[in-house]
Amino acid sequence: MSCRQISPLARIGADVRIGEHTTIHDDVVIGDGATIGDCCVIGSARTREGEPRILEIGPGSTIRSHTAVYGGSRFGPGLQTGHHVLIRENTRAGTGLRVGSYTDIEGDCALGDYVSCHSYVHIGKGSRIGDFVWLYSQVTLTNDPLPPSFVERPAVLEDGVVVCVGAIVMPGTHMNAGSYATAGTLVQGEIPEGAVVAGRDSTVVGHVSRLFDLQTMTRHPWMRHYAERYPAEARERIRLLGERIQASRAAFTKD
Amino acid sequence: MSCRQISPLARIGADVRIGEHTTIHDDVVIGDGATIGDCCVIGSARTREGEPRILEIGPGSTIRSHTAVYGGSRFGPGLQTGHHVLIRENTRAGTGLRVGSYTDIEGDCALGDYVSCHSYVHIGKGSRIGDFVWLYSQVTLTNDPLPPSFVERPAVLEDGVVVCVGAIVMPGTHMNAGSYATAGTLVQGEIPEGAVVAGRDSTVVGHVSRLFDLQTMTRHPWMRHYAERYPAEARERIRLLGERIQASRAAFTKD
Amino acid sequence: MSCRQISPLARIGADVRIGEHTTIHDDVVIGDGATIGDCCVIGSARTREGEPRILEIGPGSTIRSHTAVYGGSRFGPGLQTGHHVLIRENTRAGTGLRVGSYTDIEGDCALGDYVSCHSYVHIGKGSRIGDFVWLYSQVTLTNDPLPPSFVERPAVLEDGVVVCVGAIVMPGTHMNAGSYATAGTLVQGEIPEGAVVAGRDSTVVGHVSRLFDLQTMTRHPWMRHYAERYPAEARERIRLLGERIQASRAAFTKD
Repeated sequence: MSCRQISPLARIGADVRIGEHTTIHDDVVIGDGATIGDCCVIGSARTREGEPRILEIGPGSTIRSHTAVYGGSRFGPGLQTGHHVLIRENTRAGTGLRVGSYTDIEGDCALGDYVSCHSYVHIGKGSRIGDFVWLYSQVTLTNDPLPPSFVERPAVLEDGVVVCVGAIVMPGTHMNAGSYATAGTLVQGEIPEGAVVAGRDSTVVGHVSRLFDLQTMTRHPWMRHYAERYPAEARERIRLLGERIQASRAAFTKD
Repeated sequence: MSCRQISPLARIGADVRIGEHTTIHDDVVIGDGATIGDCCVIGSARTREGEPRILEIGPGSTIRSHTAVYGGSRFGPGLQTGHHVLIRENTRAGTGLRVGSYTDIEGDCALGDYVSCHSYVHIGKGSRIGDFVWLYSQVTLTNDPLPPSFVERPAVLEDGVVVCVGAIVMPGTHMNAGSYATAGTLVQGEIPEGAVVAGRDSTVVGHVSRLFDLQTMTRHPWMRHYAERYPAEARERIRLLGERIQASRAAFTKD
Repeated sequence: MSCRQISPLARIGADVRIGEHTTIHDDVVIGDGATIGDCCVIGSARTREGEPRILEIGPGSTIRSHTAVYGGSRFGPGLQTGHHVLIRENTRAGTGLRVGSYTDIEGDCALGDYVSCHSYVHIGKGSRIGDFVWLYSQVTLTNDPLPPSFVERPAVLEDGVVVCVGAIVMPGTHMNAGSYATAGTLVQGEIPEGAVVAGRDSTVVGHVSRLFDLQTMTRHPWMRHYAERYPAEARERIRLLGERIQASRAAFTKD
């Protein structure tokens, strides 16, 4: 016996598969060919007083089991979520957003195209994230500089930024294009384009082009060795971004 | 078609809303006006031999989707959980507990009034937490000083304590009232009232009254700028706590 | 009204209990006496083209609520998971694996007998873990040395290893038998048998036999004080492992 709650007011595209024990609320729009897993909650219940909060999920998206996505957000084509994901209201994301398992996007966030988050990533309210950004497991983007307080100073991460596992991005941080935080860094302040930061005091330790793997001769910026991972349509943008990051090397005296 | 399992032995108050795909076990008592989200598991199945383990959830509580709360716990009015929360047995909490998404309260814990946990907080078994305590994302309270072992030495956090994002509270730590651990700190030992600790060696770096935000002229202790966030009934207690923490400044020679 | 989806193609043993709102897919084999909680997703849907991906769960296992286990894995007897667990494809685990709540095993991993993971542990793709290993809360095993890249260099953890809360095991790390990473360590490189490592640079600070608790006179290696926690059948193996780790002390000059 099948068991799902799909609102008759939801607009479900062609060839959409919806799992068991999943609820689809009113005012949800799901594009063609999308797949929704088991035990998901998609959209928000209408409140008596409130306006409908439309949730748009682009075509070809995959939302895995135990995921909750609030109403009031819009995702471009090819959204992919892991399991146990939470995405709150007023999120705007471009094409190809990938959200790892247990990741929490806290609302009022803007994300560009092809952003990739691994698991347990916590994106604080109001964060602004560019295109082709990588957030690894357990990365946290905070927004209150003096917790607890009413001050909100979310982080800004420009195109091509990489934040490695366990790093904490402090309130008001601005990571310029292609900058890179190593594992466990407390990232703070203005991070120059293409800079690598490390440690509890967010020290700039060099330019990303100095990061390489001797065994495989792989070298950053990552746009040079990892563009194939993206669909063909994105690769020219990645190439141009990589050239720009590479050019920022000139500002690093020792390189 | 609606689909929930609500035990006829559960005592559900007036005007309680219960989501889809949710199970309410025997021996659960839910106060008036509470809301339980989708895909929740509330209470524990009765075991053949065991005593019933009553779970009391106060009036006006909100439990969000994918949350599991074991039997044998008691929560005051206005409990709020995020999504994907886990609360195990023998937890006692006062009024207004807020538990962020993916937070895990491991059992045998005592929490005072108006405790706030953000997401991915892990509160080890047997922890004791006072009133008006703040635990930010990914904070962990451990209890085994020599893992793995049979030794259990849970942490104690007194009233008004703040533990910032990613800090680890080591076994046997005692944080006195209003003390404050900065992001990523390994907190250990006895932390004096109103002290700020930082770093891997849990160094006292000053008194909380030295924490301020120049742009907004906000200054700690937080009871001075953040009491409005709480219901009116709690504010006098917060004011008195703030005065006490402010007075502890005298013990910090350089302040 | 009961509500679960159990494939008629699944092979369910005797005396197996299955929770509400749970899906059991085709090609799942569950041993006698196992318990599956509510809101779980066990196995994977058959794809049109793909081979069946058999999932074997040993007898006497307990899988708690909100857990997703992919097809294509095999677990020995006595698997225990917490809540909200995720285990992806091609995992091979021996007897008595314990997986804490919110833990994510990312696929293609091999785990020995009696491995214990606490909560929020992230085991990267392809990790290899021996017998009697302990991974505490928020431990992450990474595998990409130059993220993002196509290079994969998963970690190897030998028998009896302990990784304390919040430690990050960097790509390509090899922790030899009985080695021990303290809380928050960035573990990297080759860690000698019985060595204790600490800090952001993974410094060897001594031998595990130097770790002790004065109050209870408990002393590492843990095999000496904690074998009772395991079933009788495992204790002789633990004793022998403890002797081997203790013997490795000779290589540490200052001990």
